Amino acid sequence: MPHVLPLVAPTTAGSSVTIEQDHGAVIRRSILPGGVRVFTENIPGMRSATVGAWFGVGSRDETDEHAGSTHFLEHLLFKGTARRSALDIAEAFDRVGGESNALTGKEYTCYYARVIDTDLPMAIDVILDMVTSAKLDQADFDMERGVILEELAMNEDDPGDVIHERFAEAVLGGHPLGRPIGGTPEIIESVSRDAVWEHYTQHYAPSTLIVTAAGGVDHDVVCGLVQSALEEGGWDLTTAAPPVSRRDPSAPVESVHTPEIDVVRSELEQSHLLLGTRGFRANDERRNTLAVYNAILGGGMSSRLFQEIREKRGLTYTVYSFGAPSAETGLFGVYAACTPAKAPEVERLMGVEVDRMAEGVTAAELDRAKGQIAGSMVLRLEDSYSRMSRLGKAELAFGELWSIGEMLDQVHAVTADDVAALASDIASRDRAVVRVGPAR
Amino acid sequence: MPHVLPLVAPTTAGSSVTIEQDHGAVIRRSILPGGVRVFTENIPGMRSATVGAWFGVGSRDETDEHAGSTHFLEHLLFKGTARRSALDIAEAFDRVGGESNALTGKEYTCYYARVIDTDLPMAIDVILDMVTSAKLDQADFDMERGVILEELAMNEDDPGDVIHERFAEAVLGGHPLGRPIGGTPEIIESVSRDAVWEHYTQHYAPSTLIVTAAGGVDHDVVCGLVQSALEEGGWDLTTAAPPVSRRDPSAPVESVHTPEIDVVRSELEQSHLLLGTRGFRANDERRNTLAVYNAILGGGMSSRLFQEIREKRGLTYTVYSFGAPSAETGLFGVYAACTPAKAPEVERLMGVEVDRMAEGVTAAELDRAKGQIAGSMVLRLEDSYSRMSRLGKAELAFGELWSIGEMLDQVHAVTADDVAALASDIASRDRAVVRVGPAR
Repeated sequence: MPHVLPLVAPTTAGSSVTIEQDHGAVIRRSILPGGVRVFTENIPGMRSATVGAWFGVGSRDETDEHAGSTHFLEHLLFKGTARRSALDIAEAFDRVGGESNALTGKEYTCYYARVIDTDLPMAIDVILDMVTSAKLDQADFDMERGVILEELAMNEDDPGDVIHERFAEAVLGGHPLGRPIGGTPEIIESVSRDAVWEHYTQHYAPSTLIVTAAGGVDHDVVCGLVQSALEEGGWDLTTAAPPVSRRDPSAPVESVHTPEIDVVRSELEQSHLLLGTRGFRANDERRNTLAVYNAILGGGMSSRLFQEIREKRGLTYTVYSFGAPSAETGLFGVYAACTPAKAPEVERLMGVEVDRMAEGVTAAELDRAKGQIAGSMVLRLEDSYSRMSRLGKAELAFGELWSIGEMLDQVHAVTADDVAALASDIASRDRAVVRVGPAR
Repeated sequence: MPHVLPLVAPTTAGSSVTIEQDHGAVIRRSILPGGVRVFTENIPGMRSATVGAWFGVGSRDETDEHAGSTHFLEHLLFKGTARRSALDIAEAFDRVGGESNALTGKEYTCYYARVIDTDLPMAIDVILDMVTSAKLDQADFDMERGVILEELAMNEDDPGDVIHERFAEAVLGGHPLGRPIGGTPEIIESVSRDAVWEHYTQHYAPSTLIVTAAGGVDHDVVCGLVQSALEEGGWDLTTAAPPVSRRDPSAPVESVHTPEIDVVRSELEQSHLLLGTRGFRANDERRNTLAVYNAILGGGMSSRLFQEIREKRGLTYTVYSFGAPSAETGLFGVYAACTPAKAPEVERLMGVEVDRMAEGVTAAELDRAKGQIAGSMVLRLEDSYSRMSRLGKAELAFGELWSIGEMLDQVHAVTADDVAALASDIASRDRAVVRVGPAR
């Protein structure tokens, strides 16, 4: 049975739940005073620790006028606090060889660091200092605007980035999930420090903060460090904040479908193609069926797309399929890149394979896909970042945590009929295609 | 004391040497009949295993007319053997969720797989089947030519790839190390199956093969599996092959220096800049000094380049420095990307910082750099691929293996004077700059 993750502590604030996990790992979850959620996984023998501070706010929550402000804020948290300069923050992680970064998504923002376990107290202190006490100086703000414009320009030069962003627009246009995470250069040029400050003070609070950590971590120690750091940062933990609700997965997602988008880039040697449809919500009951479907269609070297388009015909170097779930909806797509003369044939074959999935899959394909999903799930367990991230997503998106054993059981329960039904559903959905490359 | 890695077994073929390693890991090395070298690291508690088959042959060993044939061969090994079709090979790894790939470098080629430890016998069997028994069918050859041309087109569309390849040409032009690994489309269009076949039969043999494995591996079991797989593949292990020599690091590298290369790409939003010099050989005694120098100049968020160019001036999103050692020489460079209007200023500042390093570094910078190198070295230990790769490079390039403790001691021994001397040397070398982006 999955472990349900209540938004308030079952009895009193401060209580914690211990979840025994496979492979000797122990998962524990506590709700601290003020409603701060702390979720850890101790992995015996692991010398690294990864800690993340999560907020369930992303670009999807912005108004059109302030698109990109979540990502702008993420940059500014590294620019200094009451206690630390930008250089102090950078040095804190560099001097221990740690990796520190942040991730702004459409639905959440996460600040994280991977360090040797003995450096975990430092990592928690620095990240929570950034979270509670960022200054957002006007001068830093103006300087960072230039850095963000460079990041947007870099993305604009990457046809893989461009095609994925435009695909979201084709399928979810008019909905905030269809917008690029970083905003547009025009908005970034004009956004004010006050708008970002408002975003910061409105969304970053004890009841919205989730701290997850995995690796060589002790739950009680992490809870103590988190509480001290938040108090040091001046956050009020004495009043019991009302629990923050999770994103409503049943909210209707209204959008405008655009069947074709062509982006002309005359200088490119390759044309990029992305063909797809609306996909499935993160907590859709068919998520394991989708994983099997995706593995068979385009999830590896033995997948149909790879075999039919690359191995048998030599038409591409890269071809794959992917699902991109979000809380409220999702995307499903097939991507390939090839020289322009081959593009019409590759595009046709991509569609043929999506359609052909609806005719069913073989028992051998089903077995291979399940083995692939199970094996890669076990291999990912060795990475403390993956495990930290799994806890954050369980907390933000699912409200439940499955053990590895439960997840493997769910995958093994998928039948060929399940896959065929899902494949028929996908094949019947409105399809969009985005092309980036020389004009045809 | 580093462990010397003799090319023939100390006493008789079949003998093995055990090297106790820090952190509970045990490293063992054997030379099998026929001269096959097997080098493993058992890491207690690790559930993954990564195995690699290495040959000390890369694009640097090709003639101009056959440039790209090593990479072409690498692709063809996945296309099938006497016992397995291309689909069989792909399925073998996919069905267990493994990651399998190959890497063609300028100086070596490596075929590897990361799998759950119980799948290691399969991984060794498949990889050594590919190595011993590839068919190189003419039809497969013709098909794969198209895939490789797509890969080259993809690289040509990536300004980061283009600038690094052209930088090697600027500094090492006329020498095989200055050529792109994959060859050119013109050569790939014209290369014959016989030329690749000759490359295969000439370079792949028991005395040139090195098998390294790390993670949940047992040395004796790996040796047994390797020997069976090679015998199954028809390789003659009964004759004691003469030992293959390692690449001679003292060979003179004659090349033509080109101070400036401009590649015009009008459609790009950003200009890419790479400024640098000849660097240092892999086994240069200053390699640890270079690591410290690089960390201070451009190795992290607290480095001089990041602070001066991004943090203080907001001119770039990406800026870093790097060393790219090879057995005979090396490259050292500084990279940045920015909108074209800022490019002259960024290029100037990159040069200023390289020059300013020669004025010396502070004690705080030295400490921070050493901590960064030590911490990241320890964090990398959790990755069985990194450890498999470390053994391969020790065997191919160094002929010696250092323990982690020895490497950390070497880093800690670097002084500010060492760094200043190296910095003066680098600052005085012929500098080249490559620019990719819109015409100025």
